[in-house]
Amino acid sequence: MASQPLMPALRADAVVIGAGPVGLFQVFQLGLQGLAAHVIDALPHVGGQCVQLYADKPIYDIPGIAHCTGRELVQRLTQQIAPFAPRLHLGQQVQSLQRLPEGGFAVGTTAGLQLQARCVFIAAGVGAFMPRTLKTEGLAQHQGRQLHYHPGTDSLGALCAARHTVVHGGDEAAVAAAIACAHNDAASVTLLHRRDVFDAPPELLQQLQQLRASGRIRVAIGQIAAQQTQAGRLLALQLHGPDGQALHLPLDQLLVYLGLTPRLGPVADWGLRLDRKQIVVDTAGFQTSESGIYAVGDVNHYPGKRKLILCGFHEATLAAFAAAEQLAGCKLGLEYTTSSARLQQLLAPSA
Amino acid sequence: MASQPLMPALRADAVVIGAGPVGLFQVFQLGLQGLAAHVIDALPHVGGQCVQLYADKPIYDIPGIAHCTGRELVQRLTQQIAPFAPRLHLGQQVQSLQRLPEGGFAVGTTAGLQLQARCVFIAAGVGAFMPRTLKTEGLAQHQGRQLHYHPGTDSLGALCAARHTVVHGGDEAAVAAAIACAHNDAASVTLLHRRDVFDAPPELLQQLQQLRASGRIRVAIGQIAAQQTQAGRLLALQLHGPDGQALHLPLDQLLVYLGLTPRLGPVADWGLRLDRKQIVVDTAGFQTSESGIYAVGDVNHYPGKRKLILCGFHEATLAAFAAAEQLAGCKLGLEYTTSSARLQQLLAPSA
Repeated sequence: MASQPLMPALRADAVVIGAGPVGLFQVFQLGLQGLAAHVIDALPHVGGQCVQLYADKPIYDIPGIAHCTGRELVQRLTQQIAPFAPRLHLGQQVQSLQRLPEGGFAVGTTAGLQLQARCVFIAAGVGAFMPRTLKTEGLAQHQGRQLHYHPGTDSLGALCAARHTVVHGGDEAAVAAAIACAHNDAASVTLLHRRDVFDAPPELLQQLQQLRASGRIRVAIGQIAAQQTQAGRLLALQLHGPDGQALHLPLDQLLVYLGLTPRLGPVADWGLRLDRKQIVVDTAGFQTSESGIYAVGDVNHYPGKRKLILCGFHEATLAAFAAAEQLAGCKLGLEYTTSSARLQQLLAPSA
Repeated sequence: MASQPLMPALRADAVVIGAGPVGLFQVFQLGLQGLAAHVIDALPHVGGQCVQLYADKPIYDIPGIAHCTGRELVQRLTQQIAPFAPRLHLGQQVQSLQRLPEGGFAVGTTAGLQLQARCVFIAAGVGAFMPRTLKTEGLAQHQGRQLHYHPGTDSLGALCAARHTVVHGGDEAAVAAAIACAHNDAASVTLLHRRDVFDAPPELLQQLQQLRASGRIRVAIGQIAAQQTQAGRLLALQLHGPDGQALHLPLDQLLVYLGLTPRLGPVADWGLRLDRKQIVVDTAGFQTSESGIYAVGDVNHYPGKRKLILCGFHEATLAAFAAAEQLAGCKLGLEYTTSSARLQQLLAPSA
């Protein structure tokens, strides 16, 4: 299934798919059970929805934390799980998951990472946050060469230098990318959006205005109708202008920022029992229909399910116990962090 | 069942039995559902086991709180639920619970409190923390007159003044009570313990030493073998001394501090389905075998159950949803504190 060259598989006690708050707490509970975790997320940072959708919005219903933002909650969880030093594999999506004949699972990502895991925890929330893509016929062939979705700030210089660059989008990420290209020796920068209104902080809008006034950024208003390719090379976009007129926009590079949208993606194809796109689990150990694969947080379903972070914390806890018992082949007693010298040695070795 | 005179019943949306961390968070989740809660606990303070057993011990596994003590967790929860202003009824135990013909429940406490509740949440943990009692034949008849278990500091003056007072016990509460009696004009104070070793902070032990040296506190070593009553009045205790000798200890008042121990008590007699002394619940709504009565936290049992505070938080959340839906007679959608103007108005009206 993976088209990347295979790297030797890394061995892992557990692979956690999704680095949102529930995936992070899964690492903690696995750590208490003595299981080291690798965590994979499509986003380039931990936190999932908490950071992507409500980084600065308030959360009031985390027990014992009267008020915090999404970003603060993720910072708190990151600090809490630090003693267990999870291996993070960010900016890549799990692409394949297969049971191995010798036991455990092979997990492969879009970055070519190969993991061999004893158990797998799907904490994928509403899905992997992936860039919205253009549907224009013939464009897809240029992806990775002349077409890039949500390139990070670090890579913009290499992509736009000395090139006629079109940045497509209307929000903060698009405006910031256009400004960065103008400062990174692009041959020209065109910011393409369906209307001449941009959603970005005032200081960015002011910089955009200055760069437009000096001619270093041109704004094109319209929607992509078609593309023009010659000898495998993207030459230009055909646009529908605001008054219905056709516009021709020659370019070397197309950088697209149309937002990130969650998609369950390959998870839906692994043969797990689903109920309306949610993974069905039992409530004793939050195991899926496949032994050794657990699902926790917003991605799962069971009678009474509510998509709340605090419920995911409970689910991750019982899933860690269930996995540890399955791997140990016996019932395991409950140790309390309050009274267990072993757990306290793990959590606060200097205390 | 209640022997106290009946007071008019207070009407309550919900009664929560137990003011431990899970009972407190139950108040919060009920508040989000628009249900106001009354909370009853046998201890004179909120916090349950968290304060009674590990007030100063560390807890590491509350999600998002890398480290806190039991007392700190209770303080945090108390702050979090403050917007919902629960009515607290402390220092009393629920004694009776009966379904009313008109719907809802009558809840009666040992202090004579009568509540009429639409739904009931049992968050009783390992049970109500009750004083350990003496089993000596004939002693029980004196309780409330010449025999008192764990009287509070406020009441000691009235109990011991001008009386020959025996304080029975060996820990901090017993030592502090003996010292307080010595300062409150007791005719005499005898501290009775099975051996001449007391478990109290150094400053209390030093005060005890000074009062022993000045003769204001006498220490008696031995175990109560029998009591002597005349005309309904407790006259003396017969002790087994350390070398097997019999000792005679005349007294007016016997104040007993043998510690608090959790007892499930009347909860076990309400006809709820039990499994090894735990209340059986479903995992969709944490309802007991009786409709409208829910059980959350350490007191309940279901497949996969782990006695962890964070699991109780989840259970309280789904129980609040289940109760709200049952009272509303329809399915209720999920509102997020992050995005619901209604909930934010409840939680942070000034924000």
